[in-house]
Amino acid sequence: MRAVDLIIAKRDGRELTPEQIRFFVRGLLSGEVSDYQASAMCMAIYLRGLTDAETAALTLEMAHSGETVDLSAIKGFKVDKHSTGGVGDKTTLVVAPLVASLGVPVAKMSGRSLGYTGGTIDKLESIPGFNPFMEISEFVDSVNRIGIAVVGQTKDLAPADRVLYSLRDVTGTVESIPLIASSIMSKKIAAGADGIVLDVKCGSGAFMKNLSDARLLAEAMVNIGESLGRRTMAVITAMDQPLGRAVGNSVEVKEAIDTLRGTGPEDFTRLCLEVASRMLLVGGLADSLEECRSLARRTLLSGQALAKFRQFVENQGGNPEVCESYDLLPNARYQEVIVSSSTGTVVRCDALSIGNASMVLGAGRRKAEDRIDHSAGVLLHKKLGEQVEEGEPIATMLTNRRDALDEARNMLSEAFSVSDVAAPVPDVILDPL
Amino acid sequence: MRAVDLIIAKRDGRELTPEQIRFFVRGLLSGEVSDYQASAMCMAIYLRGLTDAETAALTLEMAHSGETVDLSAIKGFKVDKHSTGGVGDKTTLVVAPLVASLGVPVAKMSGRSLGYTGGTIDKLESIPGFNPFMEISEFVDSVNRIGIAVVGQTKDLAPADRVLYSLRDVTGTVESIPLIASSIMSKKIAAGADGIVLDVKCGSGAFMKNLSDARLLAEAMVNIGESLGRRTMAVITAMDQPLGRAVGNSVEVKEAIDTLRGTGPEDFTRLCLEVASRMLLVGGLADSLEECRSLARRTLLSGQALAKFRQFVENQGGNPEVCESYDLLPNARYQEVIVSSSTGTVVRCDALSIGNASMVLGAGRRKAEDRIDHSAGVLLHKKLGEQVEEGEPIATMLTNRRDALDEARNMLSEAFSVSDVAAPVPDVILDPL
Repeated sequence: MRAVDLIIAKRDGRELTPEQIRFFVRGLLSGEVSDYQASAMCMAIYLRGLTDAETAALTLEMAHSGETVDLSAIKGFKVDKHSTGGVGDKTTLVVAPLVASLGVPVAKMSGRSLGYTGGTIDKLESIPGFNPFMEISEFVDSVNRIGIAVVGQTKDLAPADRVLYSLRDVTGTVESIPLIASSIMSKKIAAGADGIVLDVKCGSGAFMKNLSDARLLAEAMVNIGESLGRRTMAVITAMDQPLGRAVGNSVEVKEAIDTLRGTGPEDFTRLCLEVASRMLLVGGLADSLEECRSLARRTLLSGQALAKFRQFVENQGGNPEVCESYDLLPNARYQEVIVSSSTGTVVRCDALSIGNASMVLGAGRRKAEDRIDHSAGVLLHKKLGEQVEEGEPIATMLTNRRDALDEARNMLSEAFSVSDVAAPVPDVILDPL
Repeated sequence: MRAVDLIIAKRDGRELTPEQIRFFVRGLLSGEVSDYQASAMCMAIYLRGLTDAETAALTLEMAHSGETVDLSAIKGFKVDKHSTGGVGDKTTLVVAPLVASLGVPVAKMSGRSLGYTGGTIDKLESIPGFNPFMEISEFVDSVNRIGIAVVGQTKDLAPADRVLYSLRDVTGTVESIPLIASSIMSKKIAAGADGIVLDVKCGSGAFMKNLSDARLLAEAMVNIGESLGRRTMAVITAMDQPLGRAVGNSVEVKEAIDTLRGTGPEDFTRLCLEVASRMLLVGGLADSLEECRSLARRTLLSGQALAKFRQFVENQGGNPEVCESYDLLPNARYQEVIVSSSTGTVVRCDALSIGNASMVLGAGRRKAEDRIDHSAGVLLHKKLGEQVEEGEPIATMLTNRRDALDEARNMLSEAFSVSDVAAPVPDVILDPL
């Protein structure tokens, strides 16, 4: 088999066999497929597409290109969740303890992502004492004992995906549905869960800008999961404005705790219930999504989910008292309120600009080696469809970097538009699939 | 400007500006465009195409990526010719002295190609004493004095094309009309002629397998030449069977001399007259192709072209006596005749297999460092449409490698098919354009 013949086959729109895809993926790491051949293949895939069978085979080979996580020692049907990424997305902090408190085991490996805010692990690290690293035996034991553990990714999951992604990034081949889907799913498959719920973000602050692309991506990922024997569901959710009212790390932990207490922002609470109910359905807790929804709602209101969160935090060395005393979480030295310059309805509250402002204030990373300021971030007092008076606070900046305030203020002023034409409050759930 | 943005533009079918193409081509050599970006771009070009303006800009930038030949010290309108490559193609040996004898200056740089037989320079080197290397001043002086010089390529012409071609070869992006056209034309433009005649081969032994692709390539190259200010014409010619009856080096020199004497094979003579008459038309010697054709025919029959060939050979140190005494050319130690196993009409005389047999016998190179045996090759006694009796000679192998005879014999037996259904003799000119 020669790499060039596989490229030619795909270039001409022919379907590659699983053996050919295996040769290609293994060659990425062995060097038998050079990077210039890989990038030509990515462009051919971008323009010619992949069939469902090819996409599944690519995912499987990438998942098996490195270490995989064996969760078989954990009792029960393990359900993972994944979000394609957005601003203010603290969903895991709520849904993981929520479904765990109902008996669905959550054994989750999370990353520290690049971008506007930290990843789930960065957010959890803003809790004093919280340790995201444990031995695999301790990890398994924790889930068997209390039903939940969330740890940083230590294993080298799907290294072939990493090679391919770094090439795609510089060769104009990122925005390919089958390549995005197989990239995401290869890591989920390698992470070992039995079921997967996908939160596909859609809007100006997301990778997928329109609903039809988001649907294609969701369908592609569900197809992959199902054909590789994982029960998989997806939900498409809005990412034009940030999720909830907190963007950062410790501020998002506070908002997650509020939500676990039943007093969180409406949009974020609704999203958490939609994701959690799908995790319960995939986990086999009830037969219908409607049943799972009411189960999730009742559990959130009962305090049972918050109790599980406390137990989870304590199990990983964190101080559970943060749930009652937010002062135990890091607080920023500088706070500055931004007020509205006009009266009307908020018609633009741009996730991308707010995310960038949050990063400038210290809450995210530009480069992998950047240190995160857990106390930094942005609080939103007004969101889409809400009324605002001239001079009324619209957002608050939180930071320890006084010199970042000017740049962040400009970004936040750009992020908002106020109009005298009324606009409805949009729903966070775009397509329940 | 970033390479990835140019790749994305082409991926999405947008037209690149001349400045963007300049950035890309210069980046190939400076390293600002990496090889994996170049190969992704080639695949995007393969699948999306290039406009005429883009193709011309790419050609110009590649032509200017290295040294260029300045022929301005040569008086008159200099006309170059190029063949896209075939088996038994000794056309330059005939048309160069033919048009030079009519006053069109020929200042030609030729290569030693890889493949079935040597390039023009290899063929000329089978003439005892012939020296294909001269200083540029000597080269110019020769053309001004006797109207013709054919030298080996010493300059580094179009190095960006070389980089791109080596990537295309291993990434499935060779067979792209605009990329083939710009690759060929960049070297022609860098070689400095005022006018260019292109012999585009078409058939099983050529790169272009069918007439419609050959037409597209011819049109693309003519467009490039004209838009870069070179008078350019093309002719599409058959390459299902070898050209003439000799395949090799010294055997092709003999056949070329026969042709200059007016006693060459019909198909090869016809091709030479078609190419030469276009060179005369491009060179402005007459106003119509018909006039140029009769001028070329008369000159060939007059012995004037052969006299120019003798003068040319002598000027470059070769022994012109070879024109009268073929024994002065290298002769192979082993000769073996292959006879037909049946009676009928030759319906297959495959250029590719015969070319490969010739290479096995020593006439060509597999690798750039291989040495050529100038005396090796194949003589064809029967060609397409000709009658053959069982037991009658169909081809003769010539070699100094006795151990190559078995393999070559098998290849040659495969190359021929004889049928009892009559078939017409095909014309070598497929499309006079």
